[in-house]
Amino acid sequence: MAQKENTNNISKLLRKIKSKPLDRELGFGKNVTLNGRLMNSDGSFNVDREPLGRWDNTYYHLVTMSWRHFFMLIFSFFLLLNIFFSCLYVLIGVENFNGVTLGDFGHNFMQAFFFSSQTLTTVGYGHISPNGLVISILASFESFLGLLAFALMTGLLYGRFSRPSAKIVFSENLLIAPYKGGKGLMFRMGNAHKSELIETEVQVLMAVNQRDEDGTVNRKFYPLSLEINKISFFSLSWTIVHALSDQSPIFNFTAQDILDANAEIMVLVKGTDETSQQVVHARRSYSGEEIVWNAKFSPVIERTSRGVPKVLTRRIGAHELLEIE
Amino acid sequence: MAQKENTNNISKLLRKIKSKPLDRELGFGKNVTLNGRLMNSDGSFNVDREPLGRWDNTYYHLVTMSWRHFFMLIFSFFLLLNIFFSCLYVLIGVENFNGVTLGDFGHNFMQAFFFSSQTLTTVGYGHISPNGLVISILASFESFLGLLAFALMTGLLYGRFSRPSAKIVFSENLLIAPYKGGKGLMFRMGNAHKSELIETEVQVLMAVNQRDEDGTVNRKFYPLSLEINKISFFSLSWTIVHALSDQSPIFNFTAQDILDANAEIMVLVKGTDETSQQVVHARRSYSGEEIVWNAKFSPVIERTSRGVPKVLTRRIGAHELLEIE
Amino acid sequence: MAQKENTNNISKLLRKIKSKPLDRELGFGKNVTLNGRLMNSDGSFNVDREPLGRWDNTYYHLVTMSWRHFFMLIFSFFLLLNIFFSCLYVLIGVENFNGVTLGDFGHNFMQAFFFSSQTLTTVGYGHISPNGLVISILASFESFLGLLAFALMTGLLYGRFSRPSAKIVFSENLLIAPYKGGKGLMFRMGNAHKSELIETEVQVLMAVNQRDEDGTVNRKFYPLSLEINKISFFSLSWTIVHALSDQSPIFNFTAQDILDANAEIMVLVKGTDETSQQVVHARRSYSGEEIVWNAKFSPVIERTSRGVPKVLTRRIGAHELLEIE
Amino acid sequence: MAQKENTNNISKLLRKIKSKPLDRELGFGKNVTLNGRLMNSDGSFNVDREPLGRWDNTYYHLVTMSWRHFFMLIFSFFLLLNIFFSCLYVLIGVENFNGVTLGDFGHNFMQAFFFSSQTLTTVGYGHISPNGLVISILASFESFLGLLAFALMTGLLYGRFSRPSAKIVFSENLLIAPYKGGKGLMFRMGNAHKSELIETEVQVLMAVNQRDEDGTVNRKFYPLSLEINKISFFSLSWTIVHALSDQSPIFNFTAQDILDANAEIMVLVKGTDETSQQVVHARRSYSGEEIVWNAKFSPVIERTSRGVPKVLTRRIGAHELLEIE
Repeated sequence: MAQKENTNNISKLLRKIKSKPLDRELGFGKNVTLNGRLMNSDGSFNVDREPLGRWDNTYYHLVTMSWRHFFMLIFSFFLLLNIFFSCLYVLIGVENFNGVTLGDFGHNFMQAFFFSSQTLTTVGYGHISPNGLVISILASFESFLGLLAFALMTGLLYGRFSRPSAKIVFSENLLIAPYKGGKGLMFRMGNAHKSELIETEVQVLMAVNQRDEDGTVNRKFYPLSLEINKISFFSLSWTIVHALSDQSPIFNFTAQDILDANAEIMVLVKGTDETSQQVVHARRSYSGEEIVWNAKFSPVIERTSRGVPKVLTRRIGAHELLEIE
Repeated sequence: MAQKENTNNISKLLRKIKSKPLDRELGFGKNVTLNGRLMNSDGSFNVDREPLGRWDNTYYHLVTMSWRHFFMLIFSFFLLLNIFFSCLYVLIGVENFNGVTLGDFGHNFMQAFFFSSQTLTTVGYGHISPNGLVISILASFESFLGLLAFALMTGLLYGRFSRPSAKIVFSENLLIAPYKGGKGLMFRMGNAHKSELIETEVQVLMAVNQRDEDGTVNRKFYPLSLEINKISFFSLSWTIVHALSDQSPIFNFTAQDILDANAEIMVLVKGTDETSQQVVHARRSYSGEEIVWNAKFSPVIERTSRGVPKVLTRRIGAHELLEIE
Repeated sequence: MAQKENTNNISKLLRKIKSKPLDRELGFGKNVTLNGRLMNSDGSFNVDREPLGRWDNTYYHLVTMSWRHFFMLIFSFFLLLNIFFSCLYVLIGVENFNGVTLGDFGHNFMQAFFFSSQTLTTVGYGHISPNGLVISILASFESFLGLLAFALMTGLLYGRFSRPSAKIVFSENLLIAPYKGGKGLMFRMGNAHKSELIETEVQVLMAVNQRDEDGTVNRKFYPLSLEINKISFFSLSWTIVHALSDQSPIFNFTAQDILDANAEIMVLVKGTDETSQQVVHARRSYSGEEIVWNAKFSPVIERTSRGVPKVLTRRIGAHELLEIE
Repeated sequence: MAQKENTNNISKLLRKIKSKPLDRELGFGKNVTLNGRLMNSDGSFNVDREPLGRWDNTYYHLVTMSWRHFFMLIFSFFLLLNIFFSCLYVLIGVENFNGVTLGDFGHNFMQAFFFSSQTLTTVGYGHISPNGLVISILASFESFLGLLAFALMTGLLYGRFSRPSAKIVFSENLLIAPYKGGKGLMFRMGNAHKSELIETEVQVLMAVNQRDEDGTVNRKFYPLSLEINKISFFSLSWTIVHALSDQSPIFNFTAQDILDANAEIMVLVKGTDETSQQVVHARRSYSGEEIVWNAKFSPVIERTSRGVPKVLTRRIGAHELLEIE
C-alpha cells in the first residue's frame, strides 16, 4: 500500500518538475538502480567490475589502501618471504652454513631465519655465511629478490605520494535554509589540505524516480543550478547554494516528495592542486534522508591570535535548527 | 577477374557515398596501404620507423613490455653481469680472495660467482673478501655498478607503474543490429579497471578504397557519426551505435560492398583515468570480415548478491544471431 | 580622528571608481580582512586551515621545505632512530653481541650505536654481530626499517625534484612611471630558471576598501587591465604595465588615496615550464606602501661577450627616481 | 657600402610585405638581435639568464645532460667522495681499523680506499672494520651519505626517464619547390621515436629586419601560413608547406632579399606523446643560408618485406636539385 501511494506520488511529481533533464550522458544507461544509490556517500560509484586477470588491479589497491594497511602488508610480505626462505634453508640443512651451531628444529630455524633476514635486507653481517653450493645459490637468489622487493616498495611509496588527491571535507547534511527571501538547498565544503585548490568547480546533479508517459518508472537526472559554481581559490570554506526558485526541479517539493522520488543528490568537485599542479576530483552523494529542513550552518571560520582567518574543518557540518515560522 | 569486379564495384561505391570525407588530416598522407590495414587490431599503427640511435627506444620497450618479460630480463641481466665479473675474478686469480679454497675451474668459478653476487647486491657477508689490489678495485667497481643497476631498476619499475593506461575491452566483432526502426552498426566496450574513466569520448573512422574521377583508386577516410559520443563516467559497459541512416557513408552497403572497398573501421577512445588523473587513449580496428550481420549483443551486466550492477568484462563480445526476416 | 578621515576618504573613493568589479568569485567571501593583507608578499594566502589528522600535511611540508632543512631533518631522523635502537640494545645487554668488549655505559652504548648504524644502513661489516634471540630479532627489524626509511627518502627526494616550480623574480616595488603620454603602474619580472616558460599569462587584481550605499565598508576586488597580458616565451625580463587611463579603477588616485583604501595589488602568473611540461604558478602581492611614484626601471639586460642578451635577474627591481615635473 | 645597399634593400622590402605581422607577443621585446639569431638551430633560444643562486639550475642540468656525461659525472662523484673519505681515514690513522696491515702511505691509502668504498656502497664485507671511536663515527656518517647519494641518483635517473621528450628530426634545409602551379617553402620532419605523437601542431614564424617609417631598422615577426598545420597522428614523415602566394610575406622575395633582411624562420612543433601522455615541444630554426632554391625532397618511406611503410629517419633531409626552368 505504501508502495502504491509512493508511485502515485511519483506521477504527481512528474507534473511538478518543469526544468529540463541533464543534456549529457552520465554513462549509466537504464541500468541505474531505482531503489539503491548510484553513488556511495564517499563518492565512489556503487558498481562492480569483473577484472580481466588476477593482477589487474593490484597496483590500484596498493596505491589507494590506507597507510596503516600498506605498512602492515609490506611488513607481512617481508616476514613471509623470510619464513619461506628459512624453511628452504632448514630443508637443505643448516650444517651448510658457516658459523651456525646445530640444535633442535626451533634453534636451527631461528638461525636460518636470521641469516635469511640479513640476506633479504642485504645487511649481511657475515657471522653466518653460506658454505654449500645449493645454499649459496639460494642465498644469491634471495639477495636479488630482496633488492627487487625493495625497488618495488620504493616505486609504490612514490606512487602513493604522487597520487593526485584533494582533502575536501563535506558537511554531513544538506540544509534547506532561508536564502534571498526564499529558500535554498545548501551544503558546505572545506579544504583541509595545506595546499591551495585553484579554479575549483562544482556541479550538483539530482537523480529521481519519475513515471514516464507509458507508466514505467525511470531514473532521471537533473542538474541543480548553483548561485556560484566556480571560485578562483578554494582556501577557506565554501557554502554551495541551489536556490529553490520556480526554476528548480524540486521547487515546492515536500520532505516526503523527496523521499518518495528516492532522490539522490550528487556533488562533483574539480580543481587544481597548486603544489602538484594536478587536477583533482572529489565527489559526495547525499540521500533524501540526509536533508535537514529549516536549518543554517554555524560559523566555521575563527580568527587566530594574529588576526588570520582559520577554517575549523572538523566543524564543517555544524548547523543549528531554525524556529519553524 | 575477381579483381576486375572488385574495382567495378568500387566505382559504384563512389556514387553511393553521399557524406563528406574527414575534414582533418590523419597524418598518413597517400602512403596508406590500399590492401593492408592501417591499424592493427590492437590499435597500434601498422607502420615502422627507423630509430636514430641504438638506445633510442630502450626506455620505451622496457616500460611497455609485459611484466613477465620485464622480470626475466632483469634477472638475466643480473645473472650475466654476475657471470661476467666472476670470469674476471677467475682470470685475475681466486687466490687473491681471503676465505676461498682453491680447486678446479668449476670450484673456483662458483666461489668467484658467489663473491660477485654478494658484491653486486651489496649483501657482502665477508666470509670471502678481496685481498689483492686489482681484485679489490674490481670489487669496488662492481658494487658501484650494483647500486647503479639497482637505481635503474627502481626507476624503470616506477616508470612502468606510472604509465597512463586504460584497461578497455572491446567486443571482438562489430554487429549490424536493428536500431530505432532501421539498422545500426554497433560495438561494445567495457572498463576492466578498478579506476573510473571520466569524460570518455569515442570517435569512429572508416577507411575505404574509392575510385577518383581520374580512375585511380585512393584510400579515403570518413567519420561515422555516433548517437552518443561522450559519457561522463565510463563505469560499466557502453554500446556505441552508428545509425545506418541515409546520412551514413555506408548506407545501403551490402556485406560484399564492405569487403570490396577493403573497409577498415577504426575506433579512437579518450578519457581521464580518475586515480592518476592522466588522459588515457585506447584504439581498436575492425576489418570488414569482423562485422556480424543481423545479431545483437547479449546482456553483460548482472546483479551481485547486494543488488549492485556488475560488468562481466569477459563477456563483452557475447552476441546472438537474429533470425533473418 | 585619522580613522574618521580615512573612512571619509573611502566614501569619496567610492564615487571615483568607475570601472566594474571582478566578475568572478575569488573564493574569500566577506571574511577577507579589511586591515590585514589577503596575500603575503611571497604569494601565499594569509589564511590558516585546521588539518583533519596528524599526518595530513606531512608530505606537503617535506616536499616544500628548504633543502637545508630537508637534509637536516633526514639526518636527525637517522640519528634519533639510531640512538633509539642503541638504547634498546644496551637495555637487552650488549653481552648478546659477538665481537663486543664490555665496559662502562658509554663504552657499551657506543658499540651498540655503531652496530645499530651498520644495521640501519645495511652496511653490516659483521665485526659486531647479534648472538642472542631477542637481539637478533631486533636487528632484523631494524634492518627492515632501514630499508623502509631509505625507500621513503628516495620517494621524497624525487617528490621534491619533480615538484612543478617556476623561479620567477619580481621587482620589489610597483612603479608609477610615465607611459604613452600619461602614466602607468608597472612592475617587472624575470625568469631566473634555465628552462623556458611558455605561454605565460599575467593577471593583476586590486583589493580596496569601499563604502557601500548602506555605509558599511567592504573589501572589493577590481581587475587591472594590462597592455600585454600573455607572451609566448618568457625568456628574458617582462615589464607589465597597467595604464592609468580613465578606464583604470585607480585613475586620479593620489598616493594617500591608495593608502587610505588599504589597497593590495595581487599578481597571478601562470605558464608552462618547458623542461617538465608542467603548468606552474607564481604569485606576488604588493601593498600601497610598496608603490614608488615617479620612477622608472633601470636596464636589466646586458650583452655577453658573444653578443647574446643576458638578464641580470638580481637587478630586476632596480629603478631610478624621475625629477618631479 | 655593402651595408648601405643592404639597408636600401630593407626599405624596399618594407613595401613588398603586405601581410600583417604576428598579432601576439613573442616575449623578446625590442632587444631581439638584428644581426644574430634569436633561436639556435637546435631550437634553444639564444639568450642567457643569470641564476639567483649556486644550485638553481643543478637539477635542470643533471636531467638534460647526455647519458654519457651523466654516468661519467656520477662515477666521478662516487670516486671523489671515496677519495675524500679515504684521506680522512689515513689522517686519523689506519691503525684504528681491524684487519688492516700497516705499510707506506700508498699501501695505507689503498686499504682506506677499499674500506671507504665498501662503506659508501654499503657492501661492508667486514674483513676491514672500524675500531676506534672517531673512525667508527666517520664510517657511520659515510654509510649514511652513501644511502643519501644513492637515493639522489635514483631520483635523478627517474627524472631523466620521465622527462617529456619528442624525437623529431627535421630536414637540414628549407626547400623552395614547385607547389600547386606556383612555389612553396617546405621542410620535412619525421618521428624517430617508437611512440606515436598525437594531435601534432606546427607553427612557422619568420623574423625579418624592416625599416620603419622613421628610418630605424626593427626586427618584425610574421606568421607563415601553412597548408596543413595539424595532423591527428604523426607516425611517418610530414612535409610542411608554406605556399608562396601573394598572401605570403615573402612573396616575390629573391634569395638575396631574404639574406638582406637577415630572415630567420622558426618552427614550433607541439604534440602529445602517446606512451607518457605528456605534451612535448620541439623547435627548429633555419637561417636564410639554409634555404635551397629549386629542389624537392627525395622519398623517405620504403616498404618493409611485410609491405609495411617504414620511415627512413636518417634520410629526412635528402633532396634533389631541380633543373632551372
